[in-house]
Amino acid sequence: MGKQPEFHLKINECSDLQETFTIAKSKKCTSLVTKITNDEIKSSPLNDNSSECFVRSPLILTASQWVDVLPIVTFSSCLSSQNDFIKEECEQNILQQITFIHYLKSGTGVKIYIEPADCDAATIAKVLMKILSNKAYKDIMFVIEINIFDSRNTANMYRSDLTDEQRDTEFDSWKFWNELHMKTNYSNQIEVALVINSNLPSDDTLIYRWLAETVDMLVIPHNSFITNKSNYPIMTKRHQDVIRKFLSYTTNSITIEPKSILDNRIDFYIDYIIHQSGFVNFNEHSNYRDSLRYPLQPLYDNLDNMTYEVFEKDPAKYILYQRAIEAALIDMVSENDKSAKTIILMIVGCGRGPLIRAALNASENTKRKIKILAVEKNPGAIVVLKCMIRDLWSNKDITLISKDMRNMELEEKVDIIVSELMGSFGDNELSPECLDGVQHLLKPTGISIPQNSKSYLQPIMNKRIYGIIQKKSDNHNTSRSEYSEPTEINWLSYMSNIFHIDEVKELFTFVHPNKDVPIDNSRNGTLLFKSEVNCVLHGFAGYFTSQLYKDIEISIHPLTHTKGMGSWYSMFFPISKIIQLNPNDEIEIEFWRKIDTKKVWYEWRVNKPIFSNVHNANGDIHPIWL
Amino acid sequence: MGKQPEFHLKINECSDLQETFTIAKSKKCTSLVTKITNDEIKSSPLNDNSSECFVRSPLILTASQWVDVLPIVTFSSCLSSQNDFIKEECEQNILQQITFIHYLKSGTGVKIYIEPADCDAATIAKVLMKILSNKAYKDIMFVIEINIFDSRNTANMYRSDLTDEQRDTEFDSWKFWNELHMKTNYSNQIEVALVINSNLPSDDTLIYRWLAETVDMLVIPHNSFITNKSNYPIMTKRHQDVIRKFLSYTTNSITIEPKSILDNRIDFYIDYIIHQSGFVNFNEHSNYRDSLRYPLQPLYDNLDNMTYEVFEKDPAKYILYQRAIEAALIDMVSENDKSAKTIILMIVGCGRGPLIRAALNASENTKRKIKILAVEKNPGAIVVLKCMIRDLWSNKDITLISKDMRNMELEEKVDIIVSELMGSFGDNELSPECLDGVQHLLKPTGISIPQNSKSYLQPIMNKRIYGIIQKKSDNHNTSRSEYSEPTEINWLSYMSNIFHIDEVKELFTFVHPNKDVPIDNSRNGTLLFKSEVNCVLHGFAGYFTSQLYKDIEISIHPLTHTKGMGSWYSMFFPISKIIQLNPNDEIEIEFWRKIDTKKVWYEWRVNKPIFSNVHNANGDIHPIWL
Repeated sequence: MGKQPEFHLKINECSDLQETFTIAKSKKCTSLVTKITNDEIKSSPLNDNSSECFVRSPLILTASQWVDVLPIVTFSSCLSSQNDFIKEECEQNILQQITFIHYLKSGTGVKIYIEPADCDAATIAKVLMKILSNKAYKDIMFVIEINIFDSRNTANMYRSDLTDEQRDTEFDSWKFWNELHMKTNYSNQIEVALVINSNLPSDDTLIYRWLAETVDMLVIPHNSFITNKSNYPIMTKRHQDVIRKFLSYTTNSITIEPKSILDNRIDFYIDYIIHQSGFVNFNEHSNYRDSLRYPLQPLYDNLDNMTYEVFEKDPAKYILYQRAIEAALIDMVSENDKSAKTIILMIVGCGRGPLIRAALNASENTKRKIKILAVEKNPGAIVVLKCMIRDLWSNKDITLISKDMRNMELEEKVDIIVSELMGSFGDNELSPECLDGVQHLLKPTGISIPQNSKSYLQPIMNKRIYGIIQKKSDNHNTSRSEYSEPTEINWLSYMSNIFHIDEVKELFTFVHPNKDVPIDNSRNGTLLFKSEVNCVLHGFAGYFTSQLYKDIEISIHPLTHTKGMGSWYSMFFPISKIIQLNPNDEIEIEFWRKIDTKKVWYEWRVNKPIFSNVHNANGDIHPIWL
Repeated sequence: MGKQPEFHLKINECSDLQETFTIAKSKKCTSLVTKITNDEIKSSPLNDNSSECFVRSPLILTASQWVDVLPIVTFSSCLSSQNDFIKEECEQNILQQITFIHYLKSGTGVKIYIEPADCDAATIAKVLMKILSNKAYKDIMFVIEINIFDSRNTANMYRSDLTDEQRDTEFDSWKFWNELHMKTNYSNQIEVALVINSNLPSDDTLIYRWLAETVDMLVIPHNSFITNKSNYPIMTKRHQDVIRKFLSYTTNSITIEPKSILDNRIDFYIDYIIHQSGFVNFNEHSNYRDSLRYPLQPLYDNLDNMTYEVFEKDPAKYILYQRAIEAALIDMVSENDKSAKTIILMIVGCGRGPLIRAALNASENTKRKIKILAVEKNPGAIVVLKCMIRDLWSNKDITLISKDMRNMELEEKVDIIVSELMGSFGDNELSPECLDGVQHLLKPTGISIPQNSKSYLQPIMNKRIYGIIQKKSDNHNTSRSEYSEPTEINWLSYMSNIFHIDEVKELFTFVHPNKDVPIDNSRNGTLLFKSEVNCVLHGFAGYFTSQLYKDIEISIHPLTHTKGMGSWYSMFFPISKIIQLNPNDEIEIEFWRKIDTKKVWYEWRVNKPIFSNVHNANGDIHPIWL
């Protein structure tokens, strides 16, 4: 995905392929979407010796030009004919076309544009499965043309004989696609070419649901443009919004379908979309979009220099830490005591020292004196800290302690413990265990920054993520992949290709210092959600918020996300079997945080609408090592 | 590898790292090669709390700048000290440096430049193995500095007390490297930084041997340049040749080592090398260099459109075929019979028709009348041929036969059978079996084009190829890789990084038509080679020549290679355990071509200097399907 859209030109029938191709290229279109068969000829040339040739001469274009042709194959209604002979011939004809297209393009990635005509999802799925089950065709990608708005709905509006429910459900093109994809086992080789029709579904949720699907390209027919006073093609406000949404969250691949290759407005269509894409605020994290990353375990693994540098660059985070420390210093030391009193501030997990810097600034700004105990266990970071103290902070009162914070003793207890141990789910980098292990060094009056952390969950639909997980498990079956069972792992993910099935709800809270006796950081909780529309549950997004000091918070909760803070992506808790949801279905998830002597881990299970297995049972697949 | 060399600047000690780095960058150098330790400080900061810091401040450079620093670690002589304490501390100090460098650069590929000082290969290997055996360091790449010419040799020239043998063997820097690499199990994580000294080994073979090693970079010290009249740095003719050889066959990465960062000739050194690289005729196949490709099996698999197009582009091949057909037509039809007689020409394996074109041209040029029987089994290609006949050759006498050539009957026998079924080893795409299967349709007076094919073998050293094979087998151990046992497969390879241990020798011959009764295409042969110098046997290169008609030949034999013909790479027959060779060692290889009802396959075994296993026994690993 990039800012600038990639364009394709759709001309169903080319009288002159070479010329049409050249025109498409001249308009900076990546590929020409068109049929390559001579419809009049219906012979089966692949197996007999008839001198007939059912396609345009393959040598009209060079093999490398064919790479830039996206061939259309029509799954015509004869596929669902009652007459077995017609049905059989119809299917043969399709397989024949696909065999030839594969010959024409294989070695360069074979993408085929499927026009479903009006046969049912099941029939199409059956034929596609025949092809997908053939190993020789594992390099084929199918894009299925789906209208975002089924024209028949327009008619229904006026049909009083239909119940509201019928109106809502009868012609939901997403349900057609969903059935088709379900019946091909959600194959990664099938994606959607979504036609943005002149009419759009009345309910926005029906549109947003597509944002969670694997939409390979948007198809924009000429008649989805309207004409302004000066006779230029433009779009309705709502169309503009839809196009921009897809451009920013799903795909930047746009197929323009003009009246014909002679349509003199083609350039205007393209320019207009480019213009629209200018309004898309495209996030620089885009490379990480909808990818899955295994969470860091900074307690168990030592981070490297680059990782520290990246996180230190966060524009928002350390300013908030500095403010929090300033506020705390002012609360602890009155104006009068300024010169007399020195606050002992212990920073646990210093890394390369961003929190030391924040603390020094805070003391500077508040004119409060501090003594810093800098605790770090990573030998690499220790070397850096030593150099920093030698080269930059030689005149500051900083004591470096090269230890794991959990087994430390000090003569003198401290006033403030500062740490930044939270992960995307708050406690998932074991901040509770670490801070509990060090809080005995805190004075009774002492405080911890942060003061707490909370975790949150939200049910989501995200076909792309699910596809990645499928691939990982497939790899797992053919090779010893890195992460044996991807559905049992709580991933980090910057999810854009997403549909929020319901709102975010709070799960667990951890308070620091932890005054409970005995301290127990295991948790169990159950949350109830509800789906408004037909959709698919792929798993749960996880977020956290943390109160650093009083009203100074950091958050990755979608509604309260700290401005400009980029250090944390969301968590994603997959489910091993995805669940089809109907309107008003309840979703209940039960969630555990468990602990033994060596590790901490999460387990989760869906209880409604149906029971799932318990994921990551005993933390066998995804342990977080103590 | 690209045409333009990539430069690095080597400054052993930087007084001001930041400034030196900036200068290096300003001179378009990719990286700065330098030490990062403060030599005076010898503490062990990784484990204790001493406030000392043994390195320059890591924050002098950003993490992304550190990516472009190639740190030098010196394996100083204390490593081989008699005093265990010194030895231990020396090793600790090295491990400590490497640990820190790994922290500094990991995540971005960790390359470390090793300066062996004067400790022996075994000691260095021992320390390196400690590191390589640690999984956490699997992203480290070591480049070992090796002088192409050991200065001590200069002394020896004058020492009458040494035998020639001692002179030759005593200080062969390659043997030092070879021992080091052998004792690290030829690890893929270790390569060579080859110093091109002011003196070069007297014997060129000693230099060319390095072309078969994994040389990561050339290091050129300032004193390897001489000064011309106008006081510019230049190189001796011999140095120029050596540099160009490495640039064209091995690496384009050049490290310049000036007197100091203040050396005002740095730009001249760089310009001079760039100038030299201009004379390198760099082959466009370079992307395929020293890669291994699994041979096509066109009889068993159907080729795709792109593959046909690539092969049809060969500038030399089809012209020679056309000449051969012309010559044959003229021999068969006298001037007088021209108008009366028509030659029946059967082309078996037409693909998309390049040989049809060649035949039509030949008939045109010679004014001989021909009738073409075009035989092809690939359904995709058949469609193309039909279109060609419909669109281009409708007025020609061409009959398309969509069959496997091996089971055909005709009313009338033919005068000429034309085919292009040879692979890189001649018979390895089963031309003998195919042509034997069709020759019963040839008139007694009829001929085959080609008339024969011969295969050849040559023992070679090629560390890079061997490295790839190692990787493939490693993958095999961690995953079900595509080709289970890479040492049992006869690969296709465009080998540039190669040392020819001895000359090419002929192996098998196949004649067409084959008049033997009974016909037996199985073969067995033994070839004897000899090594002049110390080197390593990695396997055997395979080539072929084929006589199309009389004196018209095609060849990929290194000495007779058909000019401009790019359709065939060499074959490579690996051996499962590489063999160390001493001067005058004999190399005997025994080679079999075997056949059963389903497949053809090769087996090979080394008999001298030591017995290897029989490779590809029973064709279990690499069958060629009939």
